[in-house]
Amino acid sequence: MESEQLFHRGYYRNSYNSITSASSDEELLDGAGVIMDFQTSEDDNLLDGDTAVGTHYTMTNGGSINSSTHLLDLLDEPIPGVGTYDDFHTIDWVREKCKDRERHRRINSKKKESAWEMTKSLYDAWSGWLVVTLTGLASGALAGLIDIAADWMTDLKEGICLSALWYNHEQCCWGSNETTFEERDKCPQWKTWAELIIGQAEGPGSYIMNYIMYIFWALSFAFLAVSLVKVFAPYACGSGIPEIKTILSGFIIRGYLGKWTLMIKTITLVLAVASGLSLGKEGPLVHVACCCGNIFSYLFPKYSTNEAKKREVLSAASAAGVSVAFGAPIGGVLFSLEEVSYYFPLKTLWRSFFAALVAAFVLRSINPFGNSRLVLFYVEYHTPWYLFELFPFILLGVFGGLWGAFFIRANIAWCRRRKSTKFGKYPVLEVIIVAAITAVIAFPNPYTRLNTSELIKELFTDCGPLESSSLCDYRNDMNASKIVDDIPDRPAGVGVYSAIWQLCLALIFKIIMTVFTFGIKVPSGLFIPSMAIGAIAGRIVGIAVEQLAYYHHDWFIFKEWCEVGADCITPGLYAMVGAAACLGGVTRMTVSLVVIVFELTGGLEYIVPLMAAVMTSKWVGDAFGREGIYEAHIRLNGYPFLDAKEEFTHTTLAADVMRPRRNDPPLAVLTQDNMTVDDIENMINETSYNGFPVIMSKESQRLVGFALRRDLTIAIESARKKQEGIVGSSRVCFAQHTPSLPAESPRPLKLRSILDMSPFTVTDHTPMEIVVDIFRKLGLRQCLVTHNGIVLGIITKKNILEHLEQLKQHVDPLVIRCVRSPH
Amino acid sequence: MESEQLFHRGYYRNSYNSITSASSDEELLDGAGVIMDFQTSEDDNLLDGDTAVGTHYTMTNGGSINSSTHLLDLLDEPIPGVGTYDDFHTIDWVREKCKDRERHRRINSKKKESAWEMTKSLYDAWSGWLVVTLTGLASGALAGLIDIAADWMTDLKEGICLSALWYNHEQCCWGSNETTFEERDKCPQWKTWAELIIGQAEGPGSYIMNYIMYIFWALSFAFLAVSLVKVFAPYACGSGIPEIKTILSGFIIRGYLGKWTLMIKTITLVLAVASGLSLGKEGPLVHVACCCGNIFSYLFPKYSTNEAKKREVLSAASAAGVSVAFGAPIGGVLFSLEEVSYYFPLKTLWRSFFAALVAAFVLRSINPFGNSRLVLFYVEYHTPWYLFELFPFILLGVFGGLWGAFFIRANIAWCRRRKSTKFGKYPVLEVIIVAAITAVIAFPNPYTRLNTSELIKELFTDCGPLESSSLCDYRNDMNASKIVDDIPDRPAGVGVYSAIWQLCLALIFKIIMTVFTFGIKVPSGLFIPSMAIGAIAGRIVGIAVEQLAYYHHDWFIFKEWCEVGADCITPGLYAMVGAAACLGGVTRMTVSLVVIVFELTGGLEYIVPLMAAVMTSKWVGDAFGREGIYEAHIRLNGYPFLDAKEEFTHTTLAADVMRPRRNDPPLAVLTQDNMTVDDIENMINETSYNGFPVIMSKESQRLVGFALRRDLTIAIESARKKQEGIVGSSRVCFAQHTPSLPAESPRPLKLRSILDMSPFTVTDHTPMEIVVDIFRKLGLRQCLVTHNGIVLGIITKKNILEHLEQLKQHVDPLVIRCVRSPH
Repeated sequence: MESEQLFHRGYYRNSYNSITSASSDEELLDGAGVIMDFQTSEDDNLLDGDTAVGTHYTMTNGGSINSSTHLLDLLDEPIPGVGTYDDFHTIDWVREKCKDRERHRRINSKKKESAWEMTKSLYDAWSGWLVVTLTGLASGALAGLIDIAADWMTDLKEGICLSALWYNHEQCCWGSNETTFEERDKCPQWKTWAELIIGQAEGPGSYIMNYIMYIFWALSFAFLAVSLVKVFAPYACGSGIPEIKTILSGFIIRGYLGKWTLMIKTITLVLAVASGLSLGKEGPLVHVACCCGNIFSYLFPKYSTNEAKKREVLSAASAAGVSVAFGAPIGGVLFSLEEVSYYFPLKTLWRSFFAALVAAFVLRSINPFGNSRLVLFYVEYHTPWYLFELFPFILLGVFGGLWGAFFIRANIAWCRRRKSTKFGKYPVLEVIIVAAITAVIAFPNPYTRLNTSELIKELFTDCGPLESSSLCDYRNDMNASKIVDDIPDRPAGVGVYSAIWQLCLALIFKIIMTVFTFGIKVPSGLFIPSMAIGAIAGRIVGIAVEQLAYYHHDWFIFKEWCEVGADCITPGLYAMVGAAACLGGVTRMTVSLVVIVFELTGGLEYIVPLMAAVMTSKWVGDAFGREGIYEAHIRLNGYPFLDAKEEFTHTTLAADVMRPRRNDPPLAVLTQDNMTVDDIENMINETSYNGFPVIMSKESQRLVGFALRRDLTIAIESARKKQEGIVGSSRVCFAQHTPSLPAESPRPLKLRSILDMSPFTVTDHTPMEIVVDIFRKLGLRQCLVTHNGIVLGIITKKNILEHLEQLKQHVDPLVIRCVRSPH
Repeated sequence: MESEQLFHRGYYRNSYNSITSASSDEELLDGAGVIMDFQTSEDDNLLDGDTAVGTHYTMTNGGSINSSTHLLDLLDEPIPGVGTYDDFHTIDWVREKCKDRERHRRINSKKKESAWEMTKSLYDAWSGWLVVTLTGLASGALAGLIDIAADWMTDLKEGICLSALWYNHEQCCWGSNETTFEERDKCPQWKTWAELIIGQAEGPGSYIMNYIMYIFWALSFAFLAVSLVKVFAPYACGSGIPEIKTILSGFIIRGYLGKWTLMIKTITLVLAVASGLSLGKEGPLVHVACCCGNIFSYLFPKYSTNEAKKREVLSAASAAGVSVAFGAPIGGVLFSLEEVSYYFPLKTLWRSFFAALVAAFVLRSINPFGNSRLVLFYVEYHTPWYLFELFPFILLGVFGGLWGAFFIRANIAWCRRRKSTKFGKYPVLEVIIVAAITAVIAFPNPYTRLNTSELIKELFTDCGPLESSSLCDYRNDMNASKIVDDIPDRPAGVGVYSAIWQLCLALIFKIIMTVFTFGIKVPSGLFIPSMAIGAIAGRIVGIAVEQLAYYHHDWFIFKEWCEVGADCITPGLYAMVGAAACLGGVTRMTVSLVVIVFELTGGLEYIVPLMAAVMTSKWVGDAFGREGIYEAHIRLNGYPFLDAKEEFTHTTLAADVMRPRRNDPPLAVLTQDNMTVDDIENMINETSYNGFPVIMSKESQRLVGFALRRDLTIAIESARKKQEGIVGSSRVCFAQHTPSLPAESPRPLKLRSILDMSPFTVTDHTPMEIVVDIFRKLGLRQCLVTHNGIVLGIITKKNILEHLEQLKQHVDPLVIRCVRSPH
């Protein structure tokens, strides 16, 4: 039994040491253009290569098997380096999963040997939970830190707390007894810059002084942010979600989730938010959480040595990120499932949920907003909604969809211009200009001067009896002294009308600035600006409907449910629905978005309006183009991302997509036993393919297996060094039995151990929809195409992406196919 | 361009008309034993075959293509019947999806032809939303109906409302002004049977009379239920979830989701719940919702003609079922995702969510419980929990895990005995006996006499100032007249102690009866009894901890947070945690369970205790066996279900699993151009395989394609009828070009149109973990095994299941492999 098992393992390893992962070409479609954006990425790789996603690992499985039981070849020790990936390459999910199961079996079989092995096995079993717990803790703590720091720095633009410099405006005035609730924002301890510098609290001089200081701070923060990003961690810019989606789909970008990126992104995120740019911290928080996940996974060999397992941690981390960004643990899990993750086993669901909860609880105990809520804009509504209101909600959905479609087109066009023209070479200047324009325009309007989260909060909140904002300046026709919870609909006062004008201006401002802001070289999230735009539009519509219902309560649409003196319209709810619709239009999220917003309100009742608006917004947006902003950025950057959501609807066959094409040189293949080391080295040097099919012989062309370029190079090099008698004219043998050679010929080199004997194959008649499905579901890198058992060609993930791109541009692939005979 | 496109389609259809679906053996492992349990299933098939899941459909794709453009063979019209499935067979997901895309393309290409085609295309595009809306509406309405009817009939066991016969006890007393809140259950309109029959409301005579009437009604209901099930719809028994899981994984059971099953299940579910048996209506509600989904999908050709698309509707329906069962729409979606669905595309997620919401809103507007909640046992807690309490919560988790493991073993053993002995032949007698025992024991104990949902509600609810139940009979040391929300911890009174005794007896009773009840021939859900057991245990633990804290508030564990006069322990919360733990132990659900219970309480705060308990319960349960109750029942019934959650950890290779095995006759193959019609008919008659690989020639053995037994039979039959000159000695040609034949030979029969030219293949060296992965993720029925391009054998889903079973029973497969040479 024992020997059988050993035999079995040896046999197994032979075929499994090298389940293949290659593509016959370089993977990144226009990698150079993307990655070298800052021209410093090499430095960056040096700096945080050690904590990066794609760090090299050595293939250890099989290494412990006794060589005497190895029956099939002599080259028994695992060759170091075989089975690793290069930067900007795609991983092979099938191989990674096999490696992990092999590792698991090894640990399990050893665990009864000693107490130490038992401990190691327990550590291994628990490491999944440990790593998500650590990730959750760190994400929650960092989110709290960022919230507090961003609050303080945002207020620094306006003034400073003299009694305690580290207090923000609100905290500064908490201690003060001299303020009433109505004037809770004004207290002697808090000094505006005008008061400090020119000693005036009122008047045009003070206004101008404050204006100048506001612009000064905004520019300083923006400059600091972009400089830090440029110098230390170019990957820290942007929202990070497109790249995380790509990484989770199996791509390797070294350093993208490293410790430098984490550190710089955390700091610059605070600066960017504080600078008043039209951006949010929610998207970047997902990136920050993923960095934490990646860094902690290095503590656990189970995750650090396996790219597929590491991506499970990253899925959980992105759930934790959304959980702290919106205070929505369930929404975070669904976001991870719907939006970012590629392979999401159920085990990951459970761990993601755990990570999201841990992160939420850490953040709640930090309590950065002082309201024991996870987000600033948590609200509770008390009035129900009525069926008629679905009409304005759907209108908001249409607005959201239009905004999303417009934003995606405009932003992508602008980013493409930045990439293609000289303008993109001055990222610092760009940030400074955008920050300056934003600050100059934002200051005079109270709604744009506010921190965007606070603006959203104000728009979401219903007018209570104590509300002093001008948005709640209604005329009190009735006895207003009575303080009740349900304030009936009232006619709008002067304050409301002026607020609406200001909101309209703010809306236009936000729409324009967001297009130019998303994509500049500072950490920038899209969620908050989008939500703000939707909330402004929603609040305006809400007030309009409210006034309509007040003045025309005898119209048949209002008659039944909206009597005089009743509180029938909640403008805050409209703001929330609008926010969801705009966010949906931009990102094309559905369930996760509804659940996130539902967790903000806590009322199941408002799910229907939300769904109606989000659904409309998605449909309207899809009519103008099916891609969300993240997919659009992925395509813009040319990442090799095979979207799992997009259906392949064309009728092309595998034969149309495979390489070599009609006029290409024939497929580079190896034969199993009659090539020399020199032949193979020549082939490697002459071609750039990442792998070669191995066939029986030139005559029969029947497929034996697949060998990777990288593995071949490493194996030949190591054989030349370590094995005697291996020269250029040595025969290379991939077959089980060495062919009989003339007596004087040099010793053959056996390379069966690096041969993948179970490459994926499809026939040339397989429709591409099936091939695409196989690539998506199994996470392949390449697939061989056969006809009646004979190798015809190869399809890589890159070929498929090119093919999809071609079909999109209406290059008719039939032309190619019709002239190709199916062999 | 036009001709190119047509050419292309013809070419395409040629290979796609018949993407294969076959297995080389019958699919159901012990189908006869399962399905014929009632010996009436043939009748049943006759009765509701037309609305069943597995109704035959005709393959329509390609039928509309102009035959003049068809270049490759002459047999152009689609042969009716090709591409359908037999009952108890597995569907081929890949083929079904291709069919759907083809249908979609056809509709899309036609839609500009006329207004009618445009309408059809719109109808097609909207049918997904329509069908889930209808399903949601129907599920919600049926759930409301069942709730109301079950309530009324449950109360009928005790008495009747004289003023209005259709009122249940509670409704009967609503109108009465004579009752105080304390005695809200007693009113003159409501007459117990003793009052009606012997005119006594009190005393032993009345007690005995009520007892007898209780048993009488219970037995009548049970008898009626089992008779209806036996006579009209044998599939209506049980919870239905194991079968739905199997159907969703791609198996066909005709009539299981038909209209008779729906009707009978709805009626008998009410009867079964009312009979007082230890069962719940939550599981069967999922079955009811799936029946609705299946029936409505017949209104839409998109779903009625495609088994894969139909399963998307069923996934959404099961979400709607849980949504109304627990009032938890998000939990329902996660349940569908985690527990029942096999292939869950993101589109389905969104539609499931919509169906769940619609169902919830319909149920809420029916308002069956009069509390404007979807479930009876909705609660809100106001006291936080403390870290120390995690210890009892984890203890409850351990209890839940133990209960789950015990229940699964005991119930499976009992069900196996029922299947294997004569006892199983008397289902009616069994139900009557179980109902009689339940009724006789349940009546004297107030906690078992109650409807189980009401018991759970009472256990979940915290003792308020108005609570009159004996569970809340605390001694009031302090000034008790003050009515406050937060009642401090008090010493237990006599009522509490007697209640605890009664609860202990109820616990034992429920544990024993549930084991014998789940699996009898009436609709029976497991959720409610499991939750009741957990709630009882939890409440007992909760009261114990509460008293401990009251009497020992100076212990260091209580000192910090539990002062005298504070309300620190909430026994209701313990009941809820216990319920979740027990349900988790039985079903091994995780995220969905936590979310369902979270939606019952509405407080994010209590997620951590729930998670701790559910996690512990899952781990403890898994230590005794990794299967949940549904998987165990699937295995008991021998359904061909390839669990997506279970990891394949063995190291066997495809060569170990494929057929033919070592001593079997060689693989039955067809050659592409030198067999006659007689040869093929002989082969079909001599073997029972469902499909045959087609090879180049006996000499080369290279794989060309795969032909299905069913398609071959149909095609040959149709050719003999319709084509002239086809006789027994006609050559059958699967190749593209007909071979040159002697002049006098009969006309050849071209069958390329039924040949699947892209069968899935793996090499003999492929490890089974990869093969299992491919089967799971792509939903294959069979896969061919090749070695260097030559066909060696075939692996079907059934082979894989047998192999898994074998590995479980420690039959070492190496013995087989070592003696088999890899060709």
